Amino acid sequence: MIIVLKKDEAKEEIEVVKKAFDGKKQVFVHENRVAVQGAKADEIPGEVLNAAEDVITNVPAAVQSSRLLHPEDTIVKTAHTEVGGNKLALMAGPCSVESEEHIHRMAKVAKEAGATVLRGGAFKPRTSPYSFQGLGEEGLKYLREAADENGMDVITEVMDDEHVELVGKYTDFFQIGARNMQNFSLLKEVGKTKIPVALKRGMSATIDDVLNAAEYIAACGNNQIILIERGIRTFDNKYTRNTFDVGAVPVLQQLTHYPVIVDPSHAAGVWDIVTPLAQAGVAAGASGLIVEIHDDPEHAFSDGPQALKPDTFKEMARRCEEIHKVVSAWK
Amino acid sequence: MIIVLKKDEAKEEIEVVKKAFDGKKQVFVHENRVAVQGAKADEIPGEVLNAAEDVITNVPAAVQSSRLLHPEDTIVKTAHTEVGGNKLALMAGPCSVESEEHIHRMAKVAKEAGATVLRGGAFKPRTSPYSFQGLGEEGLKYLREAADENGMDVITEVMDDEHVELVGKYTDFFQIGARNMQNFSLLKEVGKTKIPVALKRGMSATIDDVLNAAEYIAACGNNQIILIERGIRTFDNKYTRNTFDVGAVPVLQQLTHYPVIVDPSHAAGVWDIVTPLAQAGVAAGASGLIVEIHDDPEHAFSDGPQALKPDTFKEMARRCEEIHKVVSAWK
Amino acid sequence: MIIVLKKDEAKEEIEVVKKAFDGKKQVFVHENRVAVQGAKADEIPGEVLNAAEDVITNVPAAVQSSRLLHPEDTIVKTAHTEVGGNKLALMAGPCSVESEEHIHRMAKVAKEAGATVLRGGAFKPRTSPYSFQGLGEEGLKYLREAADENGMDVITEVMDDEHVELVGKYTDFFQIGARNMQNFSLLKEVGKTKIPVALKRGMSATIDDVLNAAEYIAACGNNQIILIERGIRTFDNKYTRNTFDVGAVPVLQQLTHYPVIVDPSHAAGVWDIVTPLAQAGVAAGASGLIVEIHDDPEHAFSDGPQALKPDTFKEMARRCEEIHKVVSAWK
Amino acid sequence: MIIVLKKDEAKEEIEVVKKAFDGKKQVFVHENRVAVQGAKADEIPGEVLNAAEDVITNVPAAVQSSRLLHPEDTIVKTAHTEVGGNKLALMAGPCSVESEEHIHRMAKVAKEAGATVLRGGAFKPRTSPYSFQGLGEEGLKYLREAADENGMDVITEVMDDEHVELVGKYTDFFQIGARNMQNFSLLKEVGKTKIPVALKRGMSATIDDVLNAAEYIAACGNNQIILIERGIRTFDNKYTRNTFDVGAVPVLQQLTHYPVIVDPSHAAGVWDIVTPLAQAGVAAGASGLIVEIHDDPEHAFSDGPQALKPDTFKEMARRCEEIHKVVSAWK
Repeated sequence: MIIVLKKDEAKEEIEVVKKAFDGKKQVFVHENRVAVQGAKADEIPGEVLNAAEDVITNVPAAVQSSRLLHPEDTIVKTAHTEVGGNKLALMAGPCSVESEEHIHRMAKVAKEAGATVLRGGAFKPRTSPYSFQGLGEEGLKYLREAADENGMDVITEVMDDEHVELVGKYTDFFQIGARNMQNFSLLKEVGKTKIPVALKRGMSATIDDVLNAAEYIAACGNNQIILIERGIRTFDNKYTRNTFDVGAVPVLQQLTHYPVIVDPSHAAGVWDIVTPLAQAGVAAGASGLIVEIHDDPEHAFSDGPQALKPDTFKEMARRCEEIHKVVSAWK
Repeated sequence: MIIVLKKDEAKEEIEVVKKAFDGKKQVFVHENRVAVQGAKADEIPGEVLNAAEDVITNVPAAVQSSRLLHPEDTIVKTAHTEVGGNKLALMAGPCSVESEEHIHRMAKVAKEAGATVLRGGAFKPRTSPYSFQGLGEEGLKYLREAADENGMDVITEVMDDEHVELVGKYTDFFQIGARNMQNFSLLKEVGKTKIPVALKRGMSATIDDVLNAAEYIAACGNNQIILIERGIRTFDNKYTRNTFDVGAVPVLQQLTHYPVIVDPSHAAGVWDIVTPLAQAGVAAGASGLIVEIHDDPEHAFSDGPQALKPDTFKEMARRCEEIHKVVSAWK
Repeated sequence: MIIVLKKDEAKEEIEVVKKAFDGKKQVFVHENRVAVQGAKADEIPGEVLNAAEDVITNVPAAVQSSRLLHPEDTIVKTAHTEVGGNKLALMAGPCSVESEEHIHRMAKVAKEAGATVLRGGAFKPRTSPYSFQGLGEEGLKYLREAADENGMDVITEVMDDEHVELVGKYTDFFQIGARNMQNFSLLKEVGKTKIPVALKRGMSATIDDVLNAAEYIAACGNNQIILIERGIRTFDNKYTRNTFDVGAVPVLQQLTHYPVIVDPSHAAGVWDIVTPLAQAGVAAGASGLIVEIHDDPEHAFSDGPQALKPDTFKEMARRCEEIHKVVSAWK
Repeated sequence: MIIVLKKDEAKEEIEVVKKAFDGKKQVFVHENRVAVQGAKADEIPGEVLNAAEDVITNVPAAVQSSRLLHPEDTIVKTAHTEVGGNKLALMAGPCSVESEEHIHRMAKVAKEAGATVLRGGAFKPRTSPYSFQGLGEEGLKYLREAADENGMDVITEVMDDEHVELVGKYTDFFQIGARNMQNFSLLKEVGKTKIPVALKRGMSATIDDVLNAAEYIAACGNNQIILIERGIRTFDNKYTRNTFDVGAVPVLQQLTHYPVIVDPSHAAGVWDIVTPLAQAGVAAGASGLIVEIHDDPEHAFSDGPQALKPDTFKEMARRCEEIHKVVSAWK
C-alpha cells in the first residue's frame, strides 16, 4: 500500500505512519509518498488517510523499485558518466582484462568512440572450471589505471560477496552477472555499499524477477541501480546466443525508475549482429550500451566471436549516437 | 551444392547441369548460379566445374531463399508499394474488418500517416471457436473498396487453400498467419499464384523453419515473398504477449534475399509498447511495418488492447520514418 | 456459465434455457448440466435458477471440453480399441508408409507387441518442400490392408480439409499433426465427421490452446477426441528433439474428459530415450501410447533416428503394460 | 582426450602421461582411464598410445562427470542412505524449518513414509527481500535433532560460500539451489568438503550447463555429487510452476555417472500434480525423490501450495516404491 500525501503536510504524517508500523511492517518513504509493505487499508491511521491525496493498494513486492513510490527517473552519476539522463551512456572494453598493455589499448579505443566507462572482467564466471578464470586483483589494477589514464570510469563484475570490498576499491560500478542475478547474498553485500550497481538480467528471469533482484540491493540501502537487458534463453539459439528482448526496455521503464541499458554483445553472441541490436536498443529508448570490443577477437581470452573490432565499434557508436539524438528529441 | 559460373559462359553450362540431373534432382538457376539439391561434388560434370568460379557445398535445404543462390535483395512491388527497397513500407489497419464504414475510416487514418497498404482480417483465426470469425467475402469487398478509394494496396490473411482464389480476387498481398506458417497445403496454394505473400513467423518457429516455409512458396513458383517477425513465445509473457525477436531481422537479412518487416502489434499485445518496438524494428533494419490501428480499441471486435489510436499511430509513423532516414543513409 | 440442475427435473428446465437464449448465445447440454456461452447470472430465467443444484460462473472458453460440463471420462471406442478406459491403448507403426510390403511387416510387429492401432503417414508434413512427402492414397490403401490383415485399427494424419473425405475412407482415427493444431479449417472439417480425432499438441501450444483446438472439433459435432502430448519446444534441445511435458498429462486430465495419450517418439527424437519417456507417460497416467517403429531405421524415409527396432519396441510395450497395471490399480 | 589403457599395465603409463603434461594441462585418472584436458592426439607419448586399448577424442569439457572417463555408476552413501544404488532414495520435509516442534513432527511423517533423508530450509533464497528468509543456524539445529531422533540424514540448502562451514556442521548433504547452480564460488567451496552435494538444475540450464556446474565441484576434489531435475522455465506456466523435464533423467544418466533424482514439488508448484510427476520420474529411472510436505499447507511459511499433506505423501511414497520395484527389475 502506498499513501500519496498532499505535499506540504507530508513530514508529520510520515512520522505517524512510521510510528504506527514501527517494528511490525517495513515502511519506505520517498518525498510525499509512504509505502507500507503488506498493510491493509484499515490499518492506516485515520489522520493519515485524511491527509492523503491518493491511496494505491495494488503495489508490487519490489516497492522501492516501483514508479508508484518513486515516479521520477533515477539518474546514476559517477565522475565521468550519467546514466538515465539526457546523454547516451557508452560502456565498452574487452570481455576479460588480458594484460596491462591490452587493456590500455582497448581503453583508448573505447574513449575515442565516446565511451566514458571502461569494462573488463578480472573475475570471470565461466561455464567450465577449466576455462580462463580472470587475472584477479592484478586485472583490477590494470583496469583502473587504464580508465584513469583516459579519464574514464570503471565497470567490472563482482562474483562473490567476499570480493565486494576488494572490487569496490577499484571500480565505479559493480556489475552483477546474469548467472548471479539471484545470488541474494551478493546482492545484499553490494547493497551495503554506496557504489552504483549494474544488474544484468538472468537468462530466464522474468521482468518481476529483475525488479525483485534490484529490490534486494535497494533494501540494503543502495539505490544507485542500473538494469541491463542482455538477451534471454529461448528455443531460438542457432544464429544468436540469446534472444535480445528489446521489449524489456520500455516495459522496465514503465515499471521502474532505475535506468535501463542494453548489452547487445551477449545477446547476439556474434559480432555482426551486435550493431543492429545496439541500434534497436537505443531506438527502443535504452539509456546506454555496454559493448565488448577487441582488436584481435580470434585470440581473445574469452567471448571473442562477439567482440567488435575498433573500427566497427566506432561506427556502431556513431550510429547509436545519431539514433539517440532522434529518439531523445521526442521525450 | 551451388555452382557459381563465370558470367558470360553461363547459359551453356547451365543446360549441361540441367540435363545431367533431369528428373533426378531438383535444379534451381539464378543468373550465373546453379543449385542442385542434394548433389555431391563428383556428380557434377567436369566441364561445368571447369567453368565455375566457385563451388559452394554447404547449402541449406531452403536453397531458393538463400543468398548463396540469390545474393541481391528481392524487392516486392505492388501498385502503390515497394517492400525491400529504399523506402519504409507501412501497412496498417484494424485487426478485423468490422464494417464498411469503419474500414473506410481506418483507411483514411492509415493513408494520412503514410501507409500505402491497408490491412484488415475478413477470415480470422481465433483461438476459441466461439469468438468472432470475420465477415468473410463481404469484409474483403469493403477492404478492397476502402483501399481503392485511398489509392492503397490491400493485405489480408488467407487461412485455407480453398480460399486462395477467393481472397486473391481482392488482395494485393496474401498474409499467412503465424498459426499457419507450417500449413504446407496453404503455402503450396499461394505459391501457385503471382500475388506477393507476407509470411508471418510461427510462435515457436526457428529461423530455419521460417526459411523452409518460404521455400514451400518458392518451390511452387512464387518468389514474391515477405517475411514478418511478430514475436515468439517465451517464458516472459506477463507484460507483453510475445517476445519481439528484433535480432531475427538482421539474422534473416544475412541469410535470405526476401525483405523482412516487423509486426510490433502482435509482438507487444499492448498498445503502449507498440511504438518502441516499431522504432526498434526499424533501427534494426526492417524494410517495413504492419501495425494494427483502431479509433475505439475498447470496442474492437478483436485484439483491441494492442491497437494504436489514430494520433498515436501517426506519431509512431512519423518517428519510424525519421529513424528509417537515419538508418538508410548507412546502407 | 454452467447450471447444474437437480437430476430428475432436468429436461423441462433445459428447454427453458434453450428458448431463453435461442439464436443469441450458444447453449450446450450434457445430462443435467447446461452451459451458456458468455451469459451472466442475471440473464438466467429465475425458474431455472430455482431448479439448480449449483451454478458455476468461472467457465473456460472451451466449455465442451471441460469437466465442468462433462465430469466423467470420455472413452473413445473403435473396432479393436478403447482409449480412455481401463486398458492401455497402444498405437504403433512406421513414421511413413514406405511400401506395401514394409507396412505389412511393421503391422505384424506392432500386433505382436500388443498394439491394436497401426500408424503410418501417407501425407507427410515435412519442414522442407524437397523432403519425401508421402505415398498419398496408395499409402492409405496399404495401411488399411495391413491393419485389416492383423485385426487392427488405423490412425493416419490428415493435413488438409480437402483430404478429410479421402483419408476418412481408410482410417479409424484422424491424426491432426502438431503443426496443424491451430489449422482451424481442418479442425472444423474433421469435426463434421464421426471419426475419432487424435489431436497433437502444437510445439508451443499452452494447455488452454490445446483445449480450444479440441473445442473447434467439438463445436462441429464430433466429440470423439483424443489429446496427444508429444513434447514442446524449449531452450533444451541438444540431446532430445523436444521437451516431453509429462506434467501435461495430469493437468489435462484434471481439466478435460477427453483421454490423453503420449507420443514419446517425437518428444525424444532419438530412439534410446523413447522407452524411458513412454514409461514416464504411463506412470503419469496416460491412457495410451503412439510410437514409431522401424526394422531398418537407418534407411527409414523419415524420422529414422527416433524409431524403435522391433525387439526394443516389444520390450518397451511389455514394460509399459507392467507399469500400467500398477498405476491402474490405484484408480 | 581420454586414453583407455589395457588394464594391468595402467599404473606406469599413467605416470608417463602425468609427467608429460605436468603443469601444462589438467590430467584426470579413473582406474585405467586417463583424461588430458585439451590435448591433441600427437601430444600423447607414443609408449602410452601403444599401451592403449582405445583413444576417445571427442570428450566434453566436463570430463570428470562423464561416463567416458568414469563408466560405472557413482553411488553416494551416507549413514542411512544410498543414492544411485538399488534402492529408491526418499528425501522429504517442509520447505522451511518453521519451528523445533514442527520439524520434529514432519520428520516423523517423512520417516513413516520410508524417507531416510529429512529436508528443510534454514537459509531460504526468496525472490523478494521482504519474504521470510529462514531461521538460520537455529533452524539447522532443529533440523539436525529431528533427523537424529528419527535415524535420518539431513539435506539443507547452502546459499553462500561463507556458510559452507556452518551448514556443513549440521548436514549430510549440501543442497545447491536452482538459482545458485552457476554460483561458481559456492560450487568451489562445497567442492573442497567431503560432504555429498545435491545440485539442482537451474531454471534455464541446459544439460551441458548442469554437467559443467557439477564439474566445478569435482574439480575441487569432491565427487560425491547428486543431480536434481526440478523443472525448467518454459512458456507453459499457467497450470504448473515449471515444466518437469522428465527426459533429463535418462539423458543425464547416459552422459554422467552421478545419480539423478527428481524434485516433483518445485516442478509442479501445486500439490495435486506432485504425485503423477513423482511417479513419472521414478518410471523414467530416477534414483530418488525429494519432496516437500506440510501438515498445514495453508499456513506454511513458504511454498505451501506445493506441499503434500502427510497422508497424500505416504500414498505417493507407496506408489513410487511400487513403480521402482517394477523398473529396477529391468536393470
